[in-house]
Amino acid sequence: MESNASQLSALDIEPLVARLRQGDTRALARAISLVENDAPQAHALLSACFPHTGHALRIGITGAPGAGKSTLVDRLSRHYREAGKTVGVVAVDPSSPFTGGAILGDRIRLQERIADPGFYARSMATRGSLGGLALATADVALVLEASGKDILLIETVGVGQDEIEIARLADIVLLVLVPGMGDDVQSLKAGVMEIADLYVINKSDRDGADRVEQEIRALQSLASTHAAWTPPIVRTVATTGEGVDRLAQAIAQMEQWLTAEHRLTHRRAQHWQRRLHAMLRTELMRRARRHGLGENQLSEHAARIAKGREDPWQLVAQLAQKLFEEQPPEH
Amino acid sequence: MESNASQLSALDIEPLVARLRQGDTRALARAISLVENDAPQAHALLSACFPHTGHALRIGITGAPGAGKSTLVDRLSRHYREAGKTVGVVAVDPSSPFTGGAILGDRIRLQERIADPGFYARSMATRGSLGGLALATADVALVLEASGKDILLIETVGVGQDEIEIARLADIVLLVLVPGMGDDVQSLKAGVMEIADLYVINKSDRDGADRVEQEIRALQSLASTHAAWTPPIVRTVATTGEGVDRLAQAIAQMEQWLTAEHRLTHRRAQHWQRRLHAMLRTELMRRARRHGLGENQLSEHAARIAKGREDPWQLVAQLAQKLFEEQPPEH
Repeated sequence: MESNASQLSALDIEPLVARLRQGDTRALARAISLVENDAPQAHALLSACFPHTGHALRIGITGAPGAGKSTLVDRLSRHYREAGKTVGVVAVDPSSPFTGGAILGDRIRLQERIADPGFYARSMATRGSLGGLALATADVALVLEASGKDILLIETVGVGQDEIEIARLADIVLLVLVPGMGDDVQSLKAGVMEIADLYVINKSDRDGADRVEQEIRALQSLASTHAAWTPPIVRTVATTGEGVDRLAQAIAQMEQWLTAEHRLTHRRAQHWQRRLHAMLRTELMRRARRHGLGENQLSEHAARIAKGREDPWQLVAQLAQKLFEEQPPEH
Repeated sequence: MESNASQLSALDIEPLVARLRQGDTRALARAISLVENDAPQAHALLSACFPHTGHALRIGITGAPGAGKSTLVDRLSRHYREAGKTVGVVAVDPSSPFTGGAILGDRIRLQERIADPGFYARSMATRGSLGGLALATADVALVLEASGKDILLIETVGVGQDEIEIARLADIVLLVLVPGMGDDVQSLKAGVMEIADLYVINKSDRDGADRVEQEIRALQSLASTHAAWTPPIVRTVATTGEGVDRLAQAIAQMEQWLTAEHRLTHRRAQHWQRRLHAMLRTELMRRARRHGLGENQLSEHAARIAKGREDPWQLVAQLAQKLFEEQPPEH
């Protein structure tokens, strides 16, 4: 924990970014903490990182818990390190602290490789609202990218809407499935199937890998429309490393396809549009808080509404009106 | 579809509310459509409904797809109707149109009971963002309540974050589980376990009901803290109706516990605080759009950002500043 992180003045941003760009891992860790904790200097820091980004490939890895995603991320990062590429990992668990086990395990395992200066891994837990977590993940990925990483692996724990929001900030999304999960391909949230650029059937030495593949094909045939890219299906056994080379090859093909005809730029523009939307919403609420509309005030109004003593729609209209009429306070 | 819904002038709100309060089903359907489509008169309509709410019991029903929630909702509503209580049902599917099947089935089945004036059911699909759907569901529930329903059943399709957001707007949350889903109790998102006030083991005539109950107990013993209410576990077979009386009894006990020591008012105040937050955020973004910050403008900025030609953090700060300095346009 960087307990003195928030005491960093705006003047220190430039040297911090310079240090993290030179491969200083402590500076990188500190910068990520600032961003993760949404410190007052976070925006200035991100602004300073921004010009040094745009070149890394961002790979999102999502799939049901127990699909072996962490092991796969581990194998993929070794693969890329051996190919001479630098790697950054962000592992995100949007679920509450109630089940923090997996992420803690990750963190310990990943720390073992801390000696490698071309590799950096970070776990993240919930920050405020869930939209906030997707935003924070994208911010942390940006700092990692500015530190010169060629490949960013963004791993999420589950397949809920939060994970979808996080994964779709990547350039390429891998959906990891495993045989023997019964009807699980069908019961997967539709949104997850829609964002998958590449299916991985992990633990494919188990019975049922053929069935999983058939189910994916069946669902693909239903989702007729965007024929431009048909997500390939790659089988892996992450524990032994089997199929990881094939997976990296499929990722490289997708990257090639994306780079052609400005598809990658187009996709990133869509990402930025969603992100701008979330950033603007967050900024407006931040200003609302500065104008005295903090949680305490809302809590008092909520208590009156629950007793039927205040009309929430009239209240919100009044609050918004007041907010736009007042001049922003000096800071 | 109420194609002329948006042509309704503000002056027509009062008679519409009067009619829906008198049990006019067409007026109720029209009012719900206005709210669901976020029509210009939606806020005035909700304001007019608000004084007539606060007395109904809102029951949220959530659980994995295939757990038999719709059948259970059907049984519960029959139970309450037979006990002389009026019932409103809102069935919500936050997943994309890609899998619209279940909800369509619901709608048809539920329509069969349209002849009963003490019963009204409505299915809802995604409206804009997912936060938007939770808000829209709460709004529809409020209109149903104003129409004089004693019991509101709010059913969601899955157990993702979206469903959690929707379910937690209820007074009492049922989590429906079934035997034979393997490790599913453990892999359930922690958030779902945390909001459950009452566990239902449906299809409990199947093998494995004991195991599911043991797993719930084990998880409960881990989540030590809030000892005030230990969620009971009720076994049902919704297809035959077995256990539904016991379930209604457990709900009544929970209601009694909630009513004591102002717990229900406190819980509803918390709901309203979350809802106020979302309403305020929505209203601020609406005003941002009016000030020329619509999706087209954001899209143009996003394209420049994706090419590295514009700094997103500086942009958002500028946009927010501009928004607060300008006077709101006349309307």
